[in-house]
Amino acid sequence: MTKLWGGRFSGEKMDPKVLDFTSSLCVDKELAEYDCLSNKVQVEMLAKCGFISSAEEKKFLKVLNELLVEIQENRLKLVECEDIHSLIQDYVEERLPLLAAKLHTGRSRNEQVVNDVRLYCKDKITSIISLIAALQKKLVLKAETMTDVIVPGYTHLNRAQPVLFSHLLMGYIEMLERDAGRLKDAFARLDVSVMGSGALAGSALELDRKFIAKKMGFKKISANSIDAVSDRDFILEFVSGLCLVAVHLSRMSEDFILYTTAEFGFLEIDPVYCTGSSLMPQKQNPDVLELIRGKSSLVIGALNSLFVLLKGLPHSYNRDLQEDKKPLFESVNTVMAELEIFSGVVDSIQ
Amino acid sequence: MTKLWGGRFSGEKMDPKVLDFTSSLCVDKELAEYDCLSNKVQVEMLAKCGFISSAEEKKFLKVLNELLVEIQENRLKLVECEDIHSLIQDYVEERLPLLAAKLHTGRSRNEQVVNDVRLYCKDKITSIISLIAALQKKLVLKAETMTDVIVPGYTHLNRAQPVLFSHLLMGYIEMLERDAGRLKDAFARLDVSVMGSGALAGSALELDRKFIAKKMGFKKISANSIDAVSDRDFILEFVSGLCLVAVHLSRMSEDFILYTTAEFGFLEIDPVYCTGSSLMPQKQNPDVLELIRGKSSLVIGALNSLFVLLKGLPHSYNRDLQEDKKPLFESVNTVMAELEIFSGVVDSIQ
Amino acid sequence: MTKLWGGRFSGEKMDPKVLDFTSSLCVDKELAEYDCLSNKVQVEMLAKCGFISSAEEKKFLKVLNELLVEIQENRLKLVECEDIHSLIQDYVEERLPLLAAKLHTGRSRNEQVVNDVRLYCKDKITSIISLIAALQKKLVLKAETMTDVIVPGYTHLNRAQPVLFSHLLMGYIEMLERDAGRLKDAFARLDVSVMGSGALAGSALELDRKFIAKKMGFKKISANSIDAVSDRDFILEFVSGLCLVAVHLSRMSEDFILYTTAEFGFLEIDPVYCTGSSLMPQKQNPDVLELIRGKSSLVIGALNSLFVLLKGLPHSYNRDLQEDKKPLFESVNTVMAELEIFSGVVDSIQ
Amino acid sequence: MTKLWGGRFSGEKMDPKVLDFTSSLCVDKELAEYDCLSNKVQVEMLAKCGFISSAEEKKFLKVLNELLVEIQENRLKLVECEDIHSLIQDYVEERLPLLAAKLHTGRSRNEQVVNDVRLYCKDKITSIISLIAALQKKLVLKAETMTDVIVPGYTHLNRAQPVLFSHLLMGYIEMLERDAGRLKDAFARLDVSVMGSGALAGSALELDRKFIAKKMGFKKISANSIDAVSDRDFILEFVSGLCLVAVHLSRMSEDFILYTTAEFGFLEIDPVYCTGSSLMPQKQNPDVLELIRGKSSLVIGALNSLFVLLKGLPHSYNRDLQEDKKPLFESVNTVMAELEIFSGVVDSIQ
Repeated sequence: MTKLWGGRFSGEKMDPKVLDFTSSLCVDKELAEYDCLSNKVQVEMLAKCGFISSAEEKKFLKVLNELLVEIQENRLKLVECEDIHSLIQDYVEERLPLLAAKLHTGRSRNEQVVNDVRLYCKDKITSIISLIAALQKKLVLKAETMTDVIVPGYTHLNRAQPVLFSHLLMGYIEMLERDAGRLKDAFARLDVSVMGSGALAGSALELDRKFIAKKMGFKKISANSIDAVSDRDFILEFVSGLCLVAVHLSRMSEDFILYTTAEFGFLEIDPVYCTGSSLMPQKQNPDVLELIRGKSSLVIGALNSLFVLLKGLPHSYNRDLQEDKKPLFESVNTVMAELEIFSGVVDSIQ
Repeated sequence: MTKLWGGRFSGEKMDPKVLDFTSSLCVDKELAEYDCLSNKVQVEMLAKCGFISSAEEKKFLKVLNELLVEIQENRLKLVECEDIHSLIQDYVEERLPLLAAKLHTGRSRNEQVVNDVRLYCKDKITSIISLIAALQKKLVLKAETMTDVIVPGYTHLNRAQPVLFSHLLMGYIEMLERDAGRLKDAFARLDVSVMGSGALAGSALELDRKFIAKKMGFKKISANSIDAVSDRDFILEFVSGLCLVAVHLSRMSEDFILYTTAEFGFLEIDPVYCTGSSLMPQKQNPDVLELIRGKSSLVIGALNSLFVLLKGLPHSYNRDLQEDKKPLFESVNTVMAELEIFSGVVDSIQ
Repeated sequence: MTKLWGGRFSGEKMDPKVLDFTSSLCVDKELAEYDCLSNKVQVEMLAKCGFISSAEEKKFLKVLNELLVEIQENRLKLVECEDIHSLIQDYVEERLPLLAAKLHTGRSRNEQVVNDVRLYCKDKITSIISLIAALQKKLVLKAETMTDVIVPGYTHLNRAQPVLFSHLLMGYIEMLERDAGRLKDAFARLDVSVMGSGALAGSALELDRKFIAKKMGFKKISANSIDAVSDRDFILEFVSGLCLVAVHLSRMSEDFILYTTAEFGFLEIDPVYCTGSSLMPQKQNPDVLELIRGKSSLVIGALNSLFVLLKGLPHSYNRDLQEDKKPLFESVNTVMAELEIFSGVVDSIQ
Repeated sequence: MTKLWGGRFSGEKMDPKVLDFTSSLCVDKELAEYDCLSNKVQVEMLAKCGFISSAEEKKFLKVLNELLVEIQENRLKLVECEDIHSLIQDYVEERLPLLAAKLHTGRSRNEQVVNDVRLYCKDKITSIISLIAALQKKLVLKAETMTDVIVPGYTHLNRAQPVLFSHLLMGYIEMLERDAGRLKDAFARLDVSVMGSGALAGSALELDRKFIAKKMGFKKISANSIDAVSDRDFILEFVSGLCLVAVHLSRMSEDFILYTTAEFGFLEIDPVYCTGSSLMPQKQNPDVLELIRGKSSLVIGALNSLFVLLKGLPHSYNRDLQEDKKPLFESVNTVMAELEIFSGVVDSIQ
């Protein structure tokens, strides 16, 4: 197993229970592609700055490109390992045993993890903003087909004044528009490379930080190395934004659940989003909408975990920070799935 | 008592227990000044649009200006009332019994509450950004006096590499800078007047929405009336931002608590921020820092309450939304006090 | 001001901003009566063990009895003070300047606070269990008058099978019965006196711990002094129990809100629990039920704050623990009010 | 695919994205063994009550016993399916195509899920109480070897009074003892079979509810069918208890993290629980303890999700309830791993 974290085990294998407890591989495998890309840029920078030769660079890039294909084709084998970064380091070491150690020149795990997660976040925010736009488009299209449908507008769930159903749908668009705006702001604030921060005190080597940032597509480089390895604000801000998306979808789902009841009866959604019941064949349960409403509680809990994790933590890197990834990834995956499914529901309503 | 919510009690008094349960006065009295300002603009708009005469406008403004002074001098008497808006309505009614009803022309409580809270948030965000800037300044000044102080830099709370103490302090400035940025973004997104949305379906009267917005200092007017009375995103985004400030301060406090222990011993803070113990006179307990660390849990809990409140709520106004104010105000007050106190602590460290 | 926390200010007054930030008086005034009772028992124990004379005991008890009356008649003046314990100490000192210091013989603030909160919790749990029983009784009575009312039973908010409305009400009784059971278990576990634990290491004096416990009505005495001053489990367990009560009431309220809509139309509740609208006189908004639903989010947030507060806190007393009282008291007051109000609603349904 | 949820898809396959969104198989596979046992008891009850013949019973039991072995040997193949209950139903159907439908006689999915989760909880609570007892034993043993070790006792993380290190360890035992007590109470309250509740209104068939309960090892049967399919209190109470265990372990870990720093320097833990650093070979980072501290935030977030999930949910079964399993299982697995690992740490301290 890799020696990235240093010689702690004097060549011995780690206790399997401890490895199981400390390993984050089953979670952070989501970072594989980003870590691979990040390693490629690291290699290019090392070559540019003269820490490795051009021949060495080529060897590294060849292996890393092969790895990237394996990852993208979902063929990467997850052997027992502490995390995805070790796994990738091992992968390179196996293929370039004499050279692999140089990959880590002037780089600390602490900064590498942060940078990978930043790449992940940028990618996912972009996707989520597209999904939001797609849902908004469905809402506009649906609203256009319903400009003459008048429904009761409710306050306190009591009929207040008649409104156009399309007016309600257009209200949803406003909610989603703010969501997109928040995510864009979060993107801009996290678009910062922290490479060069070292474990916490920077690096004594002459690294080209701006080169790394530019090659990885970051707008800026971080200003303070202690803050850089310790900062997880960008995750909390992103997940706060996701929480609002999830809450919005839970509110829209609640509206639709009510409107599809026999009692309200304004709305029908495609049976593909419903379940029936063997005991009660007349029923059409809006399961998908109930799940969207229910799953929002997972995102709210995930955000809460993140705040709890960071509260009162001393400066710089502490291993607690490893636990930021699970709530992040789960929130992202949940909200992306919800947006896609809800788009389908909107498409199907009558 | 005022009839703002309509004729529900057929002239009778409300059951005191029910009034006690439903009244938000002891919480929303924080909105008094904003509601008064908002009433003044309402009056001006009504005059401009011809719903009241210029003489009536003057009478209203006179009473409202007197009220404003009473509020600012902390002399407003909080009689038993459902909320601050009713109290202010009653105040006007007592002084202008024949005229008062016109104050509510074309205006619903639902939109009025939202607008007042938006004014409150704009005001408080501005103050908090100033407090952040003031704390940053203290940190810079302190860092400048300590450019030759080297301390151990920690990872995993284990000494990793020596760092300048000023480098740590400058790291704090980065954290606070992101906080200010987030609050500015929140400000820009909430700088929207919702007046004219009615209870949920807009108003049949020809109100001048842009005039109201401009006079109240809002950049924009809301686009969808159903969304406008229902939207509390701006509160959640603001409190999310406050949570991060509170978490940052809890982390800085944890650093300082550790450094002031006999064991670490890098730091001294002014005894004014400490307590001793009658049993153990040698002790200097960093109470203020512990409270900053502890109070961050209140802000995290408040944010959580807000997400829970909104999750799954049907569209438009529901009375649940009344409960958004307590978590908001408490978070604002807590974070403002923390920022001020922590500035003092930074000033005093040696 | 009192010297309970030791001579920290060398006779000087505390900075008002710092006092304001650190004072818990406006919150822990709820403990006044319990602290007074606890002081009385302390005096009796000191006399019994020979630390004060019988004459001194009488003087103390006379003053404390007067204080108790002032508290019960809501006449206690809340002067500027760090907390309720200091205020009461000051009260005694003013009346018995030569004697007052002895009140604190062999006692630390750390244990005193915990014991007061335990007394508070025992008292409130007893009240809440009574309120639950009262609500259950209302439900049974209402169910008895409705044994022939058949309503649709819902799953997924879709009509599933017809059920007796009384069957639904009896289901609520089961929920509340479990709530009462949990609170009883919490009571039994917290019925422990910690007096004698000192600041964390017990007392060198020969105190009669069992006498104190018995006189205060506690079943047991604590086994470990470090744990005793640090333990807040009993608060978290109590508030967890309250959270479930609040969630149950939110679910019952949601049922009733739906059933009172024009669309469902099964249920009417007394207008005293509703509001109308000046714009829409036909409306009867179930405000009280919406507030019960909404306020549950405050209790959930309060529990969350408590867990966040304690997570990762080093052993024994830290000042962070002061912040446990606000979430506790607010949860208690909210749930008590909800139970009372909901009982009235049940009484009124038709 | 199974028809358990009724004929909703008119024989067609479900949309893969919808299936992916709604399927809980990857989570509720943890229930496989309990569902299998529960099916066996169902079969025995059906035979006893004359709904199936003795020959049919034998056939069912043969298949279910084979299934049980597959599950226990971790050989069960997880084909695409809505949940573990459907998967097991399919398994039986494949082997007993003519008979399989009878397995569901007089049984609803709603009650089956609840009962399985109750069996799971009983099993896990028993295991966790054993793990707590094992950790307590380690603590006693360690305390016994250290009866002469005096360390500073801290309040406010400031040295207060010297205490025996064994006294601190014995304090931990008290914390864990309360945890075990709470879990025992939770066990007693959840030891209830809900079979016979149907979808929400019970069953028209003459089922022997007590026979099922006894065979499954439950003490009691539920009193109200609507409550029974809707109640998730037992999960929330269990996870509340786990939260306190996790918070306790986070506090012990914080103590140990501090004591193993160079600054405090009281304690050494086995390097197997630490990591080093390639850049800084002198370091011994207490990663395992940091992870225990960090992972407590996941349990706190999970409990929060559960409260959010249930708040305001209408009576009886709603599909939202599916999302209760993930927070439950993750909390159980996290706390079990933490207890085991922390026992090892205690064993190794010097």
